[in-house]
Amino acid sequence: MSSILTPRSQDYAQWYNDLILKGSLADYSAVRGCMVIKPYGYRLWENMRDVLDGMFRETGHENAYFPLFVPKSLFEAEEKNAEGFAKECAVVTHYRLKTDPENKGKLIVDPEAKLEEELVVRPTSEAIIWNTYKNWIQSYRDLPILINQWANVVRWEMRTRLFLRTAEFLWQEGHTAHATKEEAIAETKQMLDVYAKFAEEYMAMPVIRGVKTANERFAGAEDTYCIEALMQDGKALQAGTSHFLGQNFAKAFDVQFTDKENKLDYVWATSWGVSTRLIGALVMAHSDDQGLVMPPRIAPLQVVIIPIYKGEESRQRIDDKAAEITRELKALGISVKFDNDDHTRAGWKFAEYELRGVPVRVTLGVRDLDQNQAEIARRDTKEKSTRPLEGLSAGIAALLDEIQDNMFRRAQAFRDAHITKADTWEEFQEILDGKGGFISAHWDGTPETEDRIKELTKATIRCIPLENEQEDGACILTGKPSVQRVLFARAY
Amino acid sequence: MSSILTPRSQDYAQWYNDLILKGSLADYSAVRGCMVIKPYGYRLWENMRDVLDGMFRETGHENAYFPLFVPKSLFEAEEKNAEGFAKECAVVTHYRLKTDPENKGKLIVDPEAKLEEELVVRPTSEAIIWNTYKNWIQSYRDLPILINQWANVVRWEMRTRLFLRTAEFLWQEGHTAHATKEEAIAETKQMLDVYAKFAEEYMAMPVIRGVKTANERFAGAEDTYCIEALMQDGKALQAGTSHFLGQNFAKAFDVQFTDKENKLDYVWATSWGVSTRLIGALVMAHSDDQGLVMPPRIAPLQVVIIPIYKGEESRQRIDDKAAEITRELKALGISVKFDNDDHTRAGWKFAEYELRGVPVRVTLGVRDLDQNQAEIARRDTKEKSTRPLEGLSAGIAALLDEIQDNMFRRAQAFRDAHITKADTWEEFQEILDGKGGFISAHWDGTPETEDRIKELTKATIRCIPLENEQEDGACILTGKPSVQRVLFARAY
Repeated sequence: MSSILTPRSQDYAQWYNDLILKGSLADYSAVRGCMVIKPYGYRLWENMRDVLDGMFRETGHENAYFPLFVPKSLFEAEEKNAEGFAKECAVVTHYRLKTDPENKGKLIVDPEAKLEEELVVRPTSEAIIWNTYKNWIQSYRDLPILINQWANVVRWEMRTRLFLRTAEFLWQEGHTAHATKEEAIAETKQMLDVYAKFAEEYMAMPVIRGVKTANERFAGAEDTYCIEALMQDGKALQAGTSHFLGQNFAKAFDVQFTDKENKLDYVWATSWGVSTRLIGALVMAHSDDQGLVMPPRIAPLQVVIIPIYKGEESRQRIDDKAAEITRELKALGISVKFDNDDHTRAGWKFAEYELRGVPVRVTLGVRDLDQNQAEIARRDTKEKSTRPLEGLSAGIAALLDEIQDNMFRRAQAFRDAHITKADTWEEFQEILDGKGGFISAHWDGTPETEDRIKELTKATIRCIPLENEQEDGACILTGKPSVQRVLFARAY
Repeated sequence: MSSILTPRSQDYAQWYNDLILKGSLADYSAVRGCMVIKPYGYRLWENMRDVLDGMFRETGHENAYFPLFVPKSLFEAEEKNAEGFAKECAVVTHYRLKTDPENKGKLIVDPEAKLEEELVVRPTSEAIIWNTYKNWIQSYRDLPILINQWANVVRWEMRTRLFLRTAEFLWQEGHTAHATKEEAIAETKQMLDVYAKFAEEYMAMPVIRGVKTANERFAGAEDTYCIEALMQDGKALQAGTSHFLGQNFAKAFDVQFTDKENKLDYVWATSWGVSTRLIGALVMAHSDDQGLVMPPRIAPLQVVIIPIYKGEESRQRIDDKAAEITRELKALGISVKFDNDDHTRAGWKFAEYELRGVPVRVTLGVRDLDQNQAEIARRDTKEKSTRPLEGLSAGIAALLDEIQDNMFRRAQAFRDAHITKADTWEEFQEILDGKGGFISAHWDGTPETEDRIKELTKATIRCIPLENEQEDGACILTGKPSVQRVLFARAY
């Protein structure tokens, strides 16, 4: 069964695709660049969504819903933002189909149903939202507005990959409005911290918090903060971004408010988002050649119980015990499935749940029951152990915590071992083509040098870490003076 | 404050719009026919979604996500379905914008980025889903597939109304695949029962279960089951539909399976959905001239506590007591807000929460505290009472149940009083233009007569109730023989 996956060492990209497809997370669709998220993958997304949603609420945000379409005239109002997304916009131009007069049973776009103004399918919602906020904001008493939206967005990417880069994807986008610059910046940073906490504590994926260079900034932002994760192949992945938008959108949509001193000013803005891309990150951060490895706290299924029947009289005993364990685990808030499907053998089930990355497997056989014990296998280390039935559920709950911790520590050790200082251009290239990972190196601070390094090596500056140490040095490429190291990597 | 709403008696349609806008459920947007669902309205939708989602899971369904776009060639595969929706399809024809060479800073659709095949923004997802199921189904062992999707859909309606009929709306759509006709029909009916239970037990809105006539059937269905509700103006509203699709989609997409006898057959299908339209129904079923009236079980906010401060020393006492009550209510799973905003007077708050339909209001003043009591006002009857602080929370929990029951009973009494038998065409017209509501009348069973009645009166056959009494009679219009009465009404 494990042989159905291409090994990582042989073809990392193919291993990833195999995992997504065979691990039942997603499937290709008939629409170019769009995928079908299968029930197992969607459950994972729902678990992630629910945790994040709770964190957003705790920090005072409410959910709302804004239109899918953005009229072109609104879309182009904030010029930098429009320019940044124009090349990848799906555009609705007509609102009706009609029967093809020359081909009965086929449909054609009705040329008489052309829209007066084209509609852009939202690639992001700043424009439509700020056009709405305009009507909601008059005075400082209407501020702050702290709204989040769970939605689908479309960016017409030329090269797509399941979860990592799809034409349509699911995400959340927070859009907040503030009376002062300081408050908006504090919000931007707060949400970055929420993302980092989520990535580390729930996805078991260590991240570096930082700020993007001008080259890598969100179109229309004054500053883009990000969390950057490291995948097992040594490439970085941007896992979430939080933007300080200044007054750019308020000016583009003329959103002014009267402050406490009764003066008119433009409103300050932030936006922040994470997407189904996180599922791709999760898969690449933890999985192995046998399949997915799900962190217990967001796993679609935490525990599977598999019976080993020997004749009919054993069936009832095993089923009863499985039902009892299931009840106990559910009472502890643990998701569990008893897979007593007769159509498949136990060995097939073992491989299937290993492939799906279920954190804990319980095997119940007659011999075990006779000795009041069960076999427990953990997915992260593949260790098996025999445990007494008494106290089994509490033990499994503790084991899930242990697996969560272990997965984080393992990913952290890997990540820490893959942050390497480079002080010469040769070192820089050697590390990039060798062990990979983040390279901490001096940079002269110019977009031109950054571009040149990208051209030469495909590495980009992932971020300038927050609270970065200031240190005089010489740019890795140009030798010009530099005041700090930044983190370079090749990235998804 | 109450005067901000147009009274129902004066202009029902305006009253409805006032309620939606001033009750903070939704707002108009810059996109024709699309609305913004505001946080209060979205919270209501989330509550409805969560209850329904739990009911779907209990009946064995899982969530998944399919693409927003349907390639035209797939869309047209099931001809009746395509024909039914073709007139209201938003169509994506291009995938890029570019700078207008004649108008710097403006964008135009890039004519070089024309799609080879147009993409329809899903008005419903049977086509894209059955094209996917084709790859998932080979044998009876792959069946049933029981999948639901929460998504946005677009139907380009010419006349739109907030929540009731919008170009984009949110909904869930279940799409199931079965090995036998009987199983598919059982599923169709089961989901109708789920919808009826949800409408009655959570929305406090009585519904009639029935089946649609051929005229009113979903395009592509063999049979459409529905729940029909009655609004306070005497018009009916279709609140949910469950379709038995036969083998129509399986044939259109060539989805066959080998059954237990190793014979090939086409798969049987159902689909079923409810949408944000339910919010419109909820509003019109229960609200009054003072505002919304929310059924406690799905209310965005169940209890509001409003302080009446008299000087600073009273503030601490009231705040402490409010915090205590809040804690107790939350422990009982009740949502509660303590509104101690100093910017607005208590009277303004009373009117605001009445407008928003919060089921229970608690007023805390110093004099009340001195007497160890609080004033409780219930939204449904507007009754006020003074209750001892001891046991207050448990009392409020019981009151919420009582309000829920009362709202249902009141709506049911109204509905029952508005099902009227008509045996002559004159009676039929008189009832329609008088008290309105459902008219139970004989019909000769032909689509032509149904069309003619609609032309003459704007009334349609809402449904043939399930387990309808069989009774010989004469068609209300044509006098031709009829075997049963059906329910007519003007409808939203």
